Amino acid sequence: MLYLIGLGLSHETDITVRGLETVRKCKRVYLEAYTSILMAADVLSLEKFYGKEVILADRELVETGADQILEGADKYDVAFLVVGDVFGATTHTDLVLRAKELGIAYESIHNASVMNAVGACGLQLYQFGQTVSLVFFTDSWKPDSFYSKVLENRKIGLHTLLLLDIKVKEQSIENMARGRLIYEPPRYMDIATASQQLLEIEEKRKENAYTPDTPCVAVSRLGSPTQTFKAASLKDLASYDAGEPLHSLIMLGRQVHDLELDYLCQFVDDKTAFKNLVVADQEWFKPPAWVPPEDESLSD
Amino acid sequence: MLYLIGLGLSHETDITVRGLETVRKCKRVYLEAYTSILMAADVLSLEKFYGKEVILADRELVETGADQILEGADKYDVAFLVVGDVFGATTHTDLVLRAKELGIAYESIHNASVMNAVGACGLQLYQFGQTVSLVFFTDSWKPDSFYSKVLENRKIGLHTLLLLDIKVKEQSIENMARGRLIYEPPRYMDIATASQQLLEIEEKRKENAYTPDTPCVAVSRLGSPTQTFKAASLKDLASYDAGEPLHSLIMLGRQVHDLELDYLCQFVDDKTAFKNLVVADQEWFKPPAWVPPEDESLSD
Repeated sequence: MLYLIGLGLSHETDITVRGLETVRKCKRVYLEAYTSILMAADVLSLEKFYGKEVILADRELVETGADQILEGADKYDVAFLVVGDVFGATTHTDLVLRAKELGIAYESIHNASVMNAVGACGLQLYQFGQTVSLVFFTDSWKPDSFYSKVLENRKIGLHTLLLLDIKVKEQSIENMARGRLIYEPPRYMDIATASQQLLEIEEKRKENAYTPDTPCVAVSRLGSPTQTFKAASLKDLASYDAGEPLHSLIMLGRQVHDLELDYLCQFVDDKTAFKNLVVADQEWFKPPAWVPPEDESLSD
Repeated sequence: MLYLIGLGLSHETDITVRGLETVRKCKRVYLEAYTSILMAADVLSLEKFYGKEVILADRELVETGADQILEGADKYDVAFLVVGDVFGATTHTDLVLRAKELGIAYESIHNASVMNAVGACGLQLYQFGQTVSLVFFTDSWKPDSFYSKVLENRKIGLHTLLLLDIKVKEQSIENMARGRLIYEPPRYMDIATASQQLLEIEEKRKENAYTPDTPCVAVSRLGSPTQTFKAASLKDLASYDAGEPLHSLIMLGRQVHDLELDYLCQFVDDKTAFKNLVVADQEWFKPPAWVPPEDESLSD
């Protein structure tokens, strides 16, 4: 049996009881280690907690070594651990499809991911549109496909969750060219960088998807002991020191409910100023005012 | 301290290890028992598993009895358990705000909810638009505010997760009028009812938000041992026997990735027929074809 098990967001103890019982009975345990990290745990602390060896699965192994991961899983149990939930921002459907081809049964044991835990900031999950990803810009590569998606969400009044780039085990272009397996230190995009990139693309595209005054929420270390939210304008967040990773960013849509706003006010510097930002931002993409139909009986 | 703890979707062992450790040290443990249910556990099995009394918190207690729940939480620990995640489809931000007013610290311990675990059907979470709720129609009350939201999502190519009505501890109109605290048996909307209601509203509104042939996914007992997915047209799901609750429904958007389609094909009766449905449905809301700008040098 192949077990896909979500680890949650931060601590080794964020695994579910059922997940832990399953890991402990598995013959081999893989940890998908390139799309996210557990903020308050590492491989050593996981191994100690599980009482088991944990095999790090990098992108190469997951994308090309499915058969290696699945080896023997028709006879005994193999666990594949994923930070957050199993089918979160990165899906591992390929591995499951390969298991099915080989006649290997599978089961998922779910957990929290940023996609649902982000509700902790007080914004209602069903008011979010599509989630977008923001990657690190370089001098020559500034992908802005996120911009149209934010615009689509904002046009219909919805909030947008922006997942920020995580670079783990990346090679420099020089090392890649020379075939040297030397990896750069991990990089995690922070709130200031994300906000600056957003402002840079609005400056370039000028389609008014948002403005420097659009209200946003910085989500830092969600689910960890040092979880922090900060609600402010995009412009202010461009110089915000968010501290240690991981971070995500939410851009508000026009449809902000009073209860959402009350809750967010816990995380602002100046409540009145923030409420004013929200009210001003609601002018964007506002539907036209309703005009009553002319009463024909009066027009005679 | 007030702990808000997500229980996950199905088994008592779906609580996280950290959640369980926390419940066990709390002086009082409340279970929010009106917005969802654990599919493979009940209050008795939870009490046995925790070694603790569990107090059922109905809507009345949660909405008007916050101070009762929070009593003493400045001196000792109180747990408030929520099926799924803490801030999932229903948010408990009111309780947190009241705790803050009373100077009581709080902490959330997250878990899976339908909002992220639904990724298990193979559709990518970041391709979903806003989530909508579908309530039971009566002869005189057929709320259709979901329709415009589905239309908004479909216009920009996104999938829609539809959460289906759960009625727990509801009074009949007669019993309510007579002030009798007699409650109806719980009701959980099934896939066929949801699909019929969707078809009824399209028939009435005629804005072509979707058609009887629009491809959908029935999600049944997500995260439980009998979890089942069924992908078919809306029309076919209107007569689908989905079995025991709980159920959710997904309506696909135009943007279906090949990997998503390959995965969904595990859950169809006829792969070719389903692929044809998806291709046909992609004609709706298709952006206009790109027309190359006229070359002025040739127009002379």
